Amino acid sequence: MTEPTLDIVAIGNAIVDVIAQAEEEFVAAEGVTKGSMRLMDEETSDSLYSRMGPGREISGGSAANTVAGMAAMGAKCGFIGQVADDQLGEVFHHDISANGVVFETPARSGHPSTARCLILVTPDGQRTMNTFLGASQFLPEAALDRDMIASARILYLEGYLWDPAEPRAAMRAAIDIAHKAGRQVAFTLSDTFCIARHGDDFRKLLADGAVDILFANESELLALAGGDDFEAALNSVAASVDTLVVTRGGDGAVAIQKGQRAQVAAEPIDRIVDTTGAGDLFAAGFMAGQVQGRSLEDSLHMGAIAAGEIISHYGARAEAKLDELIKARLG
Amino acid sequence: MTEPTLDIVAIGNAIVDVIAQAEEEFVAAEGVTKGSMRLMDEETSDSLYSRMGPGREISGGSAANTVAGMAAMGAKCGFIGQVADDQLGEVFHHDISANGVVFETPARSGHPSTARCLILVTPDGQRTMNTFLGASQFLPEAALDRDMIASARILYLEGYLWDPAEPRAAMRAAIDIAHKAGRQVAFTLSDTFCIARHGDDFRKLLADGAVDILFANESELLALAGGDDFEAALNSVAASVDTLVVTRGGDGAVAIQKGQRAQVAAEPIDRIVDTTGAGDLFAAGFMAGQVQGRSLEDSLHMGAIAAGEIISHYGARAEAKLDELIKARLG
Repeated sequence: MTEPTLDIVAIGNAIVDVIAQAEEEFVAAEGVTKGSMRLMDEETSDSLYSRMGPGREISGGSAANTVAGMAAMGAKCGFIGQVADDQLGEVFHHDISANGVVFETPARSGHPSTARCLILVTPDGQRTMNTFLGASQFLPEAALDRDMIASARILYLEGYLWDPAEPRAAMRAAIDIAHKAGRQVAFTLSDTFCIARHGDDFRKLLADGAVDILFANESELLALAGGDDFEAALNSVAASVDTLVVTRGGDGAVAIQKGQRAQVAAEPIDRIVDTTGAGDLFAAGFMAGQVQGRSLEDSLHMGAIAAGEIISHYGARAEAKLDELIKARLG
Repeated sequence: MTEPTLDIVAIGNAIVDVIAQAEEEFVAAEGVTKGSMRLMDEETSDSLYSRMGPGREISGGSAANTVAGMAAMGAKCGFIGQVADDQLGEVFHHDISANGVVFETPARSGHPSTARCLILVTPDGQRTMNTFLGASQFLPEAALDRDMIASARILYLEGYLWDPAEPRAAMRAAIDIAHKAGRQVAFTLSDTFCIARHGDDFRKLLADGAVDILFANESELLALAGGDDFEAALNSVAASVDTLVVTRGGDGAVAIQKGQRAQVAAEPIDRIVDTTGAGDLFAAGFMAGQVQGRSLEDSLHMGAIAAGEIISHYGARAEAKLDELIKARLG
């Protein structure tokens, strides 16, 4: 096993977020559950866009947000994901590259366009996501950079991308590449709807030992384990992975790593502006801590600091210098 | 003279801003004066984009920002400007329409693409603008909606758009349409570089009585009048327009209207994040006050409140509800 040259390579949706303020009534009238993510076709996306407020476009995508955040904390990162050869694809490519993340997946010609996620942010800072996956869902296995995957300490996968068939096959192949190279595989469950659709797949991945580090929020953990007993779910899922990290919103987060347990409170925030990316940046802080060799508790703390920064402004890419924030708090 | 159905119609550059944080050293190394605006071709723009940090795309354009702000303060607004039929053109069209501004100028096919302004924001909140005018500079006189111009109480023009030949001719035609319909013409000098290039044109417009309301900042006023005596410049330029409004950054603003003088202090701000759009939103607040029939001093105050909101966050489109801000402060 050769020494890894990257800390992490992520495979995920390559999305540009379109973030708009929205009233509670507008979200309710859309018939969508506040705080959730739903997939939509281009026509439905265009229709919602025509009705929603003025937006700001900021690169997004769950796993992409995570590696962008890790790069800001000093980790060496790569990303694999599919954009189209259009202006939003250029925006995505520019932003993640400018964050210092290696991103070389070739753009895809013709329709559909680059994925966009219409994000409605209500006055309470809660985000409701409406995603047109566009080119993102056509990431082929052939686009995998096998050498890059084999060279990274961690392969990070997002549950969102389990939905479309081509990337799902690509991610299965990537898991094999990573494990054959002696690397760790990290996985985020992403959303309860992913578990509703692919829970059996996810449970089989865990049973097969395909996942070393698992990220979930509280409701995802319960959906995966079944039942409504948090502690029971935590212990049962922790038994099937090396490391389990569960975020609990304002109640902080808990991790179990090879039997050792740690937890951390949420960071105090003056005003929650937009919760988009909180989970993504928590994962970023945690894994950045782990690759720096920090303790389980300090890694959780880094997750909480990064998540706290991201919810204090619009968008899921950091505005403050995360490395300096961490240094000021943890040394 | 029929009763106006719009409060204002603006003709301006149709631009999407790409806003990125930048260190002082980066701006200095670009060889550009901090705080200024420079025009660049597509190649230079692409080159700068490849070097600058991750961005956020927010619709901009000076006069467009002004009417978007006025609409948020309850004014009935229209906009005329040229986008290309590309994704950024759709973004611009969506955002200004979602602000409630009537925008019906047909998109232009083929190259060049929609205008973009690469904005480097230094830690002091100062913005340095690097503009590729793209489709914006090809606004033809034929694209003018003559009925819309004749139906608006105020025609508002930006000095920036005086640079390219086609829109300059269109704006001259628009002034005639507005004055023949008995409307007022408002003009912003935009930037000292506009005066360096077109000062003689601007002085002739004033001498010919083509401008009723003139907006300038302190250095633009001095550049237009010549000399470095602020009071002398103020009085000499005020003699050639009904209303002169001069913004002075942190020192507030002053207006002279038919011999009457008023002034206002700048709004106190917790933290200046990004000064982009401060002048645009000052003009918005002032003109919104005027069309509401408010006093000269209250109109200046509305300008200061709107400018104060815009510099407290990234981007030149309001995040707070300007009408509620004004109501809470001025009733």
